[in-house]
Amino acid sequence: MSIPPSPRQPVRPPAADLTGAMFIAGRRVTGAGVENRSIDARTGRPLQPPYRQASPTDIDEACHAAEAAFDTYRNLHPWHRARFLEAIAQNLTTLTDALVARAHQETGLPTARLAGEVERTTNQLRLFAGVVSEGSWYGARIDPAQPHRTPQPRPDIRQQRIPLGPVAVFGASNFPLAFSVLGGDTASALAAGCPVVVKAHDAHLGTSELAAHAIQAAVHEHGIPQGVFSLVVGDGPTLGTQLVTDPHIQAVGFTGSRTAGLALMRAAASRPQPIPVYAEMSSINPVVLMPSALADRAEALADSFTSSLTLGAGQFCTNPGLLLAIDSPGLKTFLDTAGRAIDADAGATMLTPRIAKAYRIERETVASHPRVDVLAQGSAPDSASPGQAALLTVQADDFIADPELQREMFGAAALVVRCRDLTELTDALRHLEGQLTATVHASPGDHDAVQRLLPLLERRAGRVLFNDWPTGVEVGHAMVHGGPYPATSDARTTSVGSLAIDRFLRPVAYQHAPHDLLPPVLRDDNPYNVPRRVDGVLHP
Amino acid sequence: MSIPPSPRQPVRPPAADLTGAMFIAGRRVTGAGVENRSIDARTGRPLQPPYRQASPTDIDEACHAAEAAFDTYRNLHPWHRARFLEAIAQNLTTLTDALVARAHQETGLPTARLAGEVERTTNQLRLFAGVVSEGSWYGARIDPAQPHRTPQPRPDIRQQRIPLGPVAVFGASNFPLAFSVLGGDTASALAAGCPVVVKAHDAHLGTSELAAHAIQAAVHEHGIPQGVFSLVVGDGPTLGTQLVTDPHIQAVGFTGSRTAGLALMRAAASRPQPIPVYAEMSSINPVVLMPSALADRAEALADSFTSSLTLGAGQFCTNPGLLLAIDSPGLKTFLDTAGRAIDADAGATMLTPRIAKAYRIERETVASHPRVDVLAQGSAPDSASPGQAALLTVQADDFIADPELQREMFGAAALVVRCRDLTELTDALRHLEGQLTATVHASPGDHDAVQRLLPLLERRAGRVLFNDWPTGVEVGHAMVHGGPYPATSDARTTSVGSLAIDRFLRPVAYQHAPHDLLPPVLRDDNPYNVPRRVDGVLHP
Repeated sequence: MSIPPSPRQPVRPPAADLTGAMFIAGRRVTGAGVENRSIDARTGRPLQPPYRQASPTDIDEACHAAEAAFDTYRNLHPWHRARFLEAIAQNLTTLTDALVARAHQETGLPTARLAGEVERTTNQLRLFAGVVSEGSWYGARIDPAQPHRTPQPRPDIRQQRIPLGPVAVFGASNFPLAFSVLGGDTASALAAGCPVVVKAHDAHLGTSELAAHAIQAAVHEHGIPQGVFSLVVGDGPTLGTQLVTDPHIQAVGFTGSRTAGLALMRAAASRPQPIPVYAEMSSINPVVLMPSALADRAEALADSFTSSLTLGAGQFCTNPGLLLAIDSPGLKTFLDTAGRAIDADAGATMLTPRIAKAYRIERETVASHPRVDVLAQGSAPDSASPGQAALLTVQADDFIADPELQREMFGAAALVVRCRDLTELTDALRHLEGQLTATVHASPGDHDAVQRLLPLLERRAGRVLFNDWPTGVEVGHAMVHGGPYPATSDARTTSVGSLAIDRFLRPVAYQHAPHDLLPPVLRDDNPYNVPRRVDGVLHP
Repeated sequence: MSIPPSPRQPVRPPAADLTGAMFIAGRRVTGAGVENRSIDARTGRPLQPPYRQASPTDIDEACHAAEAAFDTYRNLHPWHRARFLEAIAQNLTTLTDALVARAHQETGLPTARLAGEVERTTNQLRLFAGVVSEGSWYGARIDPAQPHRTPQPRPDIRQQRIPLGPVAVFGASNFPLAFSVLGGDTASALAAGCPVVVKAHDAHLGTSELAAHAIQAAVHEHGIPQGVFSLVVGDGPTLGTQLVTDPHIQAVGFTGSRTAGLALMRAAASRPQPIPVYAEMSSINPVVLMPSALADRAEALADSFTSSLTLGAGQFCTNPGLLLAIDSPGLKTFLDTAGRAIDADAGATMLTPRIAKAYRIERETVASHPRVDVLAQGSAPDSASPGQAALLTVQADDFIADPELQREMFGAAALVVRCRDLTELTDALRHLEGQLTATVHASPGDHDAVQRLLPLLERRAGRVLFNDWPTGVEVGHAMVHGGPYPATSDARTTSVGSLAIDRFLRPVAYQHAPHDLLPPVLRDDNPYNVPRRVDGVLHP
């Protein structure tokens, strides 16, 4: 096994200052368009520096450079790519203080949470470095020739997966690190061998620039073609459409609202050559409280529920926004306990004034529904982006009758669906749209009933949880952060965890190739030492 | 390891007679609509029996029954499902004589080729039986809990893939067995655990009914829920739209024209819940003849080329419809030799009068292009569906200037693109649309140049061949029969080979699940003995 010569340049620590520039293929570029500024979430005051929007020519350059870097980058030795990912992680760690301070200003999220998010983001990059080195992602398969097969000889056929091409990434507002410039989409696309062009999220432009410094320093240090990364600033719909319809872009990663996600899907489908869009859009994350669990531990469930609901001002795509339970004394205890906690909740600053306003409107729309009761409501904090918790209830038949009650309230509000019996609860589940998660709280006495619900839950969600809450999303090998439409645009994948690399790969077969023209992972001597399937049998 | 009790019923041999009935979830149903009839390809005479078109209610019933069968079918022990697939294969073998005789009438294809196709179809079913038993398709992953991890414990998370749901299958005209009722789409969907509703191809209705008998007998024998298979007859666009927009249908497999494929894609994208469409549409399969190869063996290349071009009247999606070469004495010898062979070609009966007419129009359109020369043209046979071979040439700059010259001529016609030098040849390749295959004929002296072309060829095609011809598509583990748009609607997959099962699966994670509620493949004791990835490490 040969280790490639290291192309490492002297380490240049990533800059911690903000310049208001974008990065286009390694160059700092100040846009010529309108100024965008992040807003201090708490005070509503615009932050320095301003970031001018990219021109169409800037975008064009970024996409061209990504295409120009693609063949070199995708054919790097996997260990080289892995070390590049590790260097990005290391640079992020170096910038922790600056990232946390700026992200705290821009998003109002607590500094401890943001420090944890830096760690999550670096762990994610390191996870993908490991995945790249291990090599299963190549999907290498070899069907050796059978020259004596009758009636016809079998030719030698070998298969590997290659990356799709440059990827456009649109980060989320609610995870300024883990789902943004260097978040899961970028990490998995870079791991797969795809250059990325990231649209900086307007709500955290400074955090985005810092993350770009981390990757730029690693690009330099590891001699990676500069076009492998660009960060551009612009008006969402305009820039989004230009990026997604650029002929060099071959896939899209997106986390955000359903409206924006659907717009990107339409733009991608309207191209002369349609491309895959991986949009993670919206989910209300149903939680079923089973009868024995409620009888056993209603108060404890209420406590853990309200913690999950109000965590991060409820701004999680996996926030438990819908509870389903059968009327019982246990449910009454649960609602009384949770209601008291929500009533006493002091509220929290949300990510932006705009998100706080949208949440208020969504919550009030559901709360004012003639069939919905407001069980409890917390206080609004003194903030430019105030988030107020709420607990609402509705009868199952009313819930089933009106699909509008499945609207996501992006914040700390949940709707409890009160059911007469298990049949009605099952019926309510059957009427749900696709979800990121579905959760069951059950005691052993509930298991027979849960067993019957399980096929339904599996078909509605990407992750099924038991006696836990959905707000934590582990970054590992077994995680699925995805799910049936409209939770995402493509249920066949995940945007968190090592399987996310699959989104940016496609198989290619090589038939009867001379050995010197075979890709390395398909050569007889397997120089990268990757797992392969030979004649259908796995050789790890 | 427990082997499940066999639910086998007494074997009931599949019927070899034709009744003109469809099959809807195990029932023979005679439609109430317009009569469809296959046509004898050679004589143009309508064949008995007539098949009446399904009513919307029939289609609705088929889709409902597929949904009703889904949960039971998908949760069968994999060995049970594997034995079911093997039984279908066995039943097809039993029906070989009847299938070959009927398909020969309906398609005009030679009986030896059709007998080979029966074998290919049964091998394909047996391949998937092996894939189902082996169990890698579950994609089982286990990240065990880490209760002592800081700052937070890690929950137990496990992942498996589950099938998408009922699949609509639209077979191809040119492979009445291997790409039709029990072809690759149906075999891989059934292997994944998806019920299928097949639209019978109008060009081979009798062959379709016989294939349905083979599966019905296996459904009965193995106690499979009847809704797992339906065969319906109808008008293409009407039935296609109804099937693809039925809410129970969750994916689509299609092989056919670009026009029909794009219509299905649009219908699928317009649903309230969009679904994946795997459409294999059109390809002209570029073949590059490198200078040294032409200098070494121009005559032999011309011979093998004309065999590949005229095989099956050129009615292969992988037919070599485009040659690219640099002008040289070798190319002159190649063209002279191939031209003589084409001029002497007696032609062949095509699949249907309509396909023959469409081919003639496509060929004449390209031939009458002001920049295209007709180098050679074969004879038309005495047939209701006459197919006439042709060899056309064009200069590379003219080819590059007019994308219309990339139109597929579905039949035994090829266009030779004459290039001044390697730069122009590379430029012509760069202008190509996505393809199923790309082929290079090269001698060792060409390898340096081919190495530089390879990244381009990989990005244009799903399969790259060396010193071979693309018309044979092996059914194995390493095959890719797919490729970038517009060759297919989704380059991330293959419609031939064991990887095709991936199209109909999606991952689901189970977090903190009580052991008795875990799916079998994720239980600690691994009762189905499937390969799993534990904490990222593969355990085959």
